[in-house]
Amino acid sequence: MVSIIMGSDSDLPIMEQAAHILEDFGIKYEISVVSAHRTPKRMFDYAENAHLRGVKVIIAGAGGAAHLPGMVASISPLPVIGVPIKSSNSIDGWDSILSILQMPNGIPVATVALNAAKNAGILAVKILACNDPELLEKVAAFRDNLRDLVLDKVNQNPKLENF
Amino acid sequence: MVSIIMGSDSDLPIMEQAAHILEDFGIKYEISVVSAHRTPKRMFDYAENAHLRGVKVIIAGAGGAAHLPGMVASISPLPVIGVPIKSSNSIDGWDSILSILQMPNGIPVATVALNAAKNAGILAVKILACNDPELLEKVAAFRDNLRDLVLDKVNQNPKLENF
Amino acid sequence: MVSIIMGSDSDLPIMEQAAHILEDFGIKYEISVVSAHRTPKRMFDYAENAHLRGVKVIIAGAGGAAHLPGMVASISPLPVIGVPIKSSNSIDGWDSILSILQMPNGIPVATVALNAAKNAGILAVKILACNDPELLEKVAAFRDNLRDLVLDKVNQNPKLENF
Amino acid sequence: MVSIIMGSDSDLPIMEQAAHILEDFGIKYEISVVSAHRTPKRMFDYAENAHLRGVKVIIAGAGGAAHLPGMVASISPLPVIGVPIKSSNSIDGWDSILSILQMPNGIPVATVALNAAKNAGILAVKILACNDPELLEKVAAFRDNLRDLVLDKVNQNPKLENF
Amino acid sequence: MVSIIMGSDSDLPIMEQAAHILEDFGIKYEISVVSAHRTPKRMFDYAENAHLRGVKVIIAGAGGAAHLPGMVASISPLPVIGVPIKSSNSIDGWDSILSILQMPNGIPVATVALNAAKNAGILAVKILACNDPELLEKVAAFRDNLRDLVLDKVNQNPKLENF
Amino acid sequence: MVSIIMGSDSDLPIMEQAAHILEDFGIKYEISVVSAHRTPKRMFDYAENAHLRGVKVIIAGAGGAAHLPGMVASISPLPVIGVPIKSSNSIDGWDSILSILQMPNGIPVATVALNAAKNAGILAVKILACNDPELLEKVAAFRDNLRDLVLDKVNQNPKLENF
Amino acid sequence: MVSIIMGSDSDLPIMEQAAHILEDFGIKYEISVVSAHRTPKRMFDYAENAHLRGVKVIIAGAGGAAHLPGMVASISPLPVIGVPIKSSNSIDGWDSILSILQMPNGIPVATVALNAAKNAGILAVKILACNDPELLEKVAAFRDNLRDLVLDKVNQNPKLENF
Amino acid sequence: MVSIIMGSDSDLPIMEQAAHILEDFGIKYEISVVSAHRTPKRMFDYAENAHLRGVKVIIAGAGGAAHLPGMVASISPLPVIGVPIKSSNSIDGWDSILSILQMPNGIPVATVALNAAKNAGILAVKILACNDPELLEKVAAFRDNLRDLVLDKVNQNPKLENF
Repeated sequence: MVSIIMGSDSDLPIMEQAAHILEDFGIKYEISVVSAHRTPKRMFDYAENAHLRGVKVIIAGAGGAAHLPGMVASISPLPVIGVPIKSSNSIDGWDSILSILQMPNGIPVATVALNAAKNAGILAVKILACNDPELLEKVAAFRDNLRDLVLDKVNQNPKLENF
Repeated sequence: MVSIIMGSDSDLPIMEQAAHILEDFGIKYEISVVSAHRTPKRMFDYAENAHLRGVKVIIAGAGGAAHLPGMVASISPLPVIGVPIKSSNSIDGWDSILSILQMPNGIPVATVALNAAKNAGILAVKILACNDPELLEKVAAFRDNLRDLVLDKVNQNPKLENF
Repeated sequence: MVSIIMGSDSDLPIMEQAAHILEDFGIKYEISVVSAHRTPKRMFDYAENAHLRGVKVIIAGAGGAAHLPGMVASISPLPVIGVPIKSSNSIDGWDSILSILQMPNGIPVATVALNAAKNAGILAVKILACNDPELLEKVAAFRDNLRDLVLDKVNQNPKLENF
Repeated sequence: MVSIIMGSDSDLPIMEQAAHILEDFGIKYEISVVSAHRTPKRMFDYAENAHLRGVKVIIAGAGGAAHLPGMVASISPLPVIGVPIKSSNSIDGWDSILSILQMPNGIPVATVALNAAKNAGILAVKILACNDPELLEKVAAFRDNLRDLVLDKVNQNPKLENF
Repeated sequence: MVSIIMGSDSDLPIMEQAAHILEDFGIKYEISVVSAHRTPKRMFDYAENAHLRGVKVIIAGAGGAAHLPGMVASISPLPVIGVPIKSSNSIDGWDSILSILQMPNGIPVATVALNAAKNAGILAVKILACNDPELLEKVAAFRDNLRDLVLDKVNQNPKLENF
Repeated sequence: MVSIIMGSDSDLPIMEQAAHILEDFGIKYEISVVSAHRTPKRMFDYAENAHLRGVKVIIAGAGGAAHLPGMVASISPLPVIGVPIKSSNSIDGWDSILSILQMPNGIPVATVALNAAKNAGILAVKILACNDPELLEKVAAFRDNLRDLVLDKVNQNPKLENF
Repeated sequence: MVSIIMGSDSDLPIMEQAAHILEDFGIKYEISVVSAHRTPKRMFDYAENAHLRGVKVIIAGAGGAAHLPGMVASISPLPVIGVPIKSSNSIDGWDSILSILQMPNGIPVATVALNAAKNAGILAVKILACNDPELLEKVAAFRDNLRDLVLDKVNQNPKLENF
Repeated sequence: MVSIIMGSDSDLPIMEQAAHILEDFGIKYEISVVSAHRTPKRMFDYAENAHLRGVKVIIAGAGGAAHLPGMVASISPLPVIGVPIKSSNSIDGWDSILSILQMPNGIPVATVALNAAKNAGILAVKILACNDPELLEKVAAFRDNLRDLVLDKVNQNPKLENF
């Protein structure tokens, strides 16, 4: 199971994109709000217990001074994927990116691009797939589909040439 | 009492400057290492209990993805002063500054300049002084002394004119 | 009493958020415009006298080359909270942030996030509370309320799970 | 097996830190130079075949306009961890970070902090551990050891208090 | 012939500006989508064969972690002009600029300004013109026309003086 | 007379370069330390009286949250040239530049490049020269001398060609 | 006379603000488009002759890679005020600011804030005023008026207190 | 012939790297100092005449507010390659990069990475090669040699594996 958490319910429209990807791959997930700053105890309990509840990978999205991914990564032994979110009053997203990415030695967060919850979902699938040949096939098929969508556009758009 | 904490003992040479200022003002302090990422439980306990142990103001220094000041501020009712530290592999200090400064609505951190532990100490004194007329006098004297040091230099440096 | 000042009346919609927080906590405040650049004498007199008029904490908001918080902090012995405001023609707020945050040794400004007047209000309350057990209780209750609002959303939003 | 690649042999002193972590955890690895720009065919072949050779996780480090992690991630179905390296003539590392992190929808790279090859190694272990309870135990022990090292310092450094 | 490629068909409205310039100069061109990340094999084949198909100059536009121009430049012996595109979720275009501009020693990309596909077209013309006196004349005439358009505005706008 | 002031005597090695230029042009100057933050009253008095003492142009250098040039410009009717200084703990000079440059409407500071006290001196000369034909001649001669120094290098360096 | 030039007629709505200030002060001015890149000869001639035509101060506005102010300053002995303009496709104005501000030793440009043509006008007046006691009086009155406008707002806005 | 110019003789150690590449390819070149700011007339004459003297490609390096490449590109019909140089007092090279890269519509500069004079040389060769099959062969060989150097290192360094 993949667990998707976010610092605020205002992040839901972005973080749902991770859920949609997991649905597409037929992977079980849960989704909720866990705030490092407003619900620190809930965050603490969540991070301590996630792997005991069957969670394999955690996706955590947060904006501004985004401490949720790093704090969860410091408590849970599971891999944590961090999604920097460009919230209102963010400084162009730099704050979210740097406070998720620049973790100290010992406690990594697998950071993806700004607002890239979809990619977080795909990364979670890739992580699960690396020990699951059947899922690995699906990842390869997903990759091939990305290619085919481009090739279709090239073939169908009269403005584009097909060399 | 003022409590000075930092994320790593490598921050000690900088954070000691806060202690020196408090000593100069005759204010009791404690100083230690509390890591949000490596000792999250210690951090949690510390933040929950500081005000019960007589701490009035917390000074927290950290570098990189600096979560310590914000996490402590989310748990403790006390004012937390954050000192962004320019650690090695920091990106010019931007990561520390933004991950301390850009806290979400509801959980402020009183951020000072990069590496400015001395100013954190002075800010702690000012916070204690706002309800302590005697200490307020000392703050005013400290300010006047800053002025006098400049004026002395102007008077003594033959290169500088005194208009 | 908390004194809220700002460099321009165009900052009022943002800075009023500090006032609303103080009202919520039942703390007396005053609010006005004091411009470092357009009313330097008024700023000077204000900073020299605020503590004599019963002000305990100053909240100062300004945008662009934002000198108001730092100048007031250099004159008044009181703690000064600086609110960087993202004004029009600001360079994404970097100018306000850096000209408030990066104060030299000796004259700290307690800087909060970009446009975070609400957090400035909460920080002022925390500063007053550190010597006022009853107010400290209210701060803890405010913090608990932030938590409960998140938990309520988790309970009520059918999209979110409650683990 | 974890595969560690880097764009240039000048990155070896940094990227070896990933290898050391994997050794500590008793995880098999390979390490080599694969340049997206100077050996694109080698990169292509490598990325197409890695999962067929038993590789589970790829760690790719590169500096400047760092295309290696993203290109490998676009070809291989395996999870790719990207290590931005602050090379000479890099612009403070911003170029490496942004060209690894900001991957488009569909092709994530699990980016870690600047020069953080050690964290890339730990993240690889966490990825492998999420389906391996024994390894998960070791990750938890590693985390506990980080904690103990801090507590030991607190206990042994006479300058630090133990509250 | 000039070959114009872009990472996504969403870049077409910008990249078409390069085509328009080439049309104005009567230079043959082709235009299509080639994605380094979604169609790596197509990109590889394209880059290996472009010069064999009569292409003289390549213009490649991409956004975010923009690897297309650099990857093509690493495979093709032809000069590659890179157009950084400010896509949605880009960080103000910095990601595109740095991942195109900061290529390592040995593999240059001729980078133009953000979104400056028109300038990429003109640069392609200048490159073709440096060995074609007739085209060089046309470039000089184009430059003179830019001047004349300014002088006309000065003459016709009553607000502007003609000194 | 040109008045050269700076926020700290540590800025003297840089700010003296302005004095040297004025000496070269035979222009009277004074030089001293005036700190906006540590000697606000001195700054205030200085700014109010400079034009009454015969000062025509003010050059003010400061680092970090550099308020001196802007504060003096808000009080004095004279033109103020601001020199951003890259002090220790400065964030690459961005703080000094932005807090001097980004002045609000009504109160300009003539900002020069980072650490460019020499250019501040030349700008002061140009300002005085615009109403002094003899000095204007000297400025033109200074400009011609810059040119001749380059041409001499071209002529004398055997590595450089003279086309 | 003050000469106002700009790189493109699209800058006119901003640069006209400089003209309005000069009108307010009763100072003669001229305004036109001079493009360093599209009309380099016109720029050259303009810069060589401006002081011969009675121009005392030059105001030059430009966006992007803004070379106009610096090029004119390298040719003319007159003081040149540079206005960085945030044009479309500018990178948040950083390009204009840095290419105007960071002039090499010997050739200063008096740079004002982003889009601050109004301040450029005021700076031109201050430059002319430093040798013109009557105009200096007007500058002081303008400054006093800025103050009075703030005080009036404080007096008239019932939300603001007058301390 | 390729013409290599730079704004200052202090740039020579970097710009010579372009010359070395051209020597390796047996391409005629000239190298000299042409300063946009200190020798504007020389720059003007140079740019007007270069193509008449047999120059095919211009490489121009400059630091800080780097106007040389853009000014030459606005006058000469030849392709101009710009090399941003990180000079002392540069702001981490951002000033040079942005003032070379962000040219307005109509006047492109082919910008390479910070200090990347070597890549400027290679780009000049690629530009000449696009109409010269023999030289194109040499470029392909140069590219293959880059590859072989990497493969040799992989083969010879016992720390690196050859998969």
